[in-house]
Amino acid sequence: MSPTAFENPTGTREEILAATYRTLCTHGYTDLTIQRIGEEFEKSPSLIYHHYEDKDDLVLSCLAFMLDQFEERITNGGIHDEHHTDPRTRLESFLAWALEPDADTDQQQFMELIVELRARAAHDEQYRKHFERSDRVFERYLTTILEDGVEQEVFETTAPERVAAGLVTTLAGVMVRRSTVESESWLEAVDTELNAYLEACVYAQ
Amino acid sequence: MSPTAFENPTGTREEILAATYRTLCTHGYTDLTIQRIGEEFEKSPSLIYHHYEDKDDLVLSCLAFMLDQFEERITNGGIHDEHHTDPRTRLESFLAWALEPDADTDQQQFMELIVELRARAAHDEQYRKHFERSDRVFERYLTTILEDGVEQEVFETTAPERVAAGLVTTLAGVMVRRSTVESESWLEAVDTELNAYLEACVYAQ
Repeated sequence: MSPTAFENPTGTREEILAATYRTLCTHGYTDLTIQRIGEEFEKSPSLIYHHYEDKDDLVLSCLAFMLDQFEERITNGGIHDEHHTDPRTRLESFLAWALEPDADTDQQQFMELIVELRARAAHDEQYRKHFERSDRVFERYLTTILEDGVEQEVFETTAPERVAAGLVTTLAGVMVRRSTVESESWLEAVDTELNAYLEACVYAQ
Repeated sequence: MSPTAFENPTGTREEILAATYRTLCTHGYTDLTIQRIGEEFEKSPSLIYHHYEDKDDLVLSCLAFMLDQFEERITNGGIHDEHHTDPRTRLESFLAWALEPDADTDQQQFMELIVELRARAAHDEQYRKHFERSDRVFERYLTTILEDGVEQEVFETTAPERVAAGLVTTLAGVMVRRSTVESESWLEAVDTELNAYLEACVYAQ
């Protein structure tokens, strides 16, 4: 899942979702209107109504599309060559995405958007379902990396799924804090402690 | 910081904030109106306008009040006797608040509310300031516990502030996940891994 999902939209539906994503980044969820999406969309805005029911249908389709793209990239080795890159590098590069300081504007906007939309899940069943799926996708992805590492004897955990659940939770906290406070002084501390945990509890000695 | 902050409001301002809190729990931020707060408030609704400028002034004052109450309870040993309870018990009971399964309705509503309001901080400077302060308060609280533990030789970390930053971040992730997904299967995993980390990197051997 990443802001690159919409770089080369193919077909009308993807173009509409790309316009939805750009509009969400500019205006946020609250001020999102189909009219505003229409202004970002290069074809006739009436096409939007032809393909999507309402604002939430668009936003949820946009979230689902990004997650689908992420799943496809893992399966096809698009993030890095999943079958040849060593598990520790794969794990570290996944964590680095969230933990590297000085995120660029695209990444910052993406994190803020996810935090804003995730908060909707507190009161909206459809968003809740999306984030259930999203958490499961990331937990499964990390579990696979951890299992590969155990098999290759570079990791030592007996419970890859448990470690994955912990990492997904901490990264959710990282995204929330990065999106909602100005300071980033805590970020390096989190990175260091996460590494101390991995050294002590996951990486083979 | 906890939903108990409004149990015994004293004075008009606190009664207004207690009514704001109850209304927020019932309707969420988006559907919050001063009229609805007025319905929860037992005196004349016009008093609300006398004391507070607008909806956000009320919500931010409500958040600030809860955080003030938390700070007061720490200072006066109201959570447990801060000066006599051992550091490990203090740390564990703080973590348990967020990690214990089967939260009651009050606690669940409180977590959902914080997640919803925190998401506002992505686009609103005033909320951002509140959550900056809030993160600092919790980091400082945990740092004090960790420093006490090091002094009493029950903890071994060389960087209490760094550990505190990590814990606050993971707990932010716990609150987000508990408020936005149905399943809690991941929660026990997070608890176990957090303990593994503390055993390996913080508790004295």
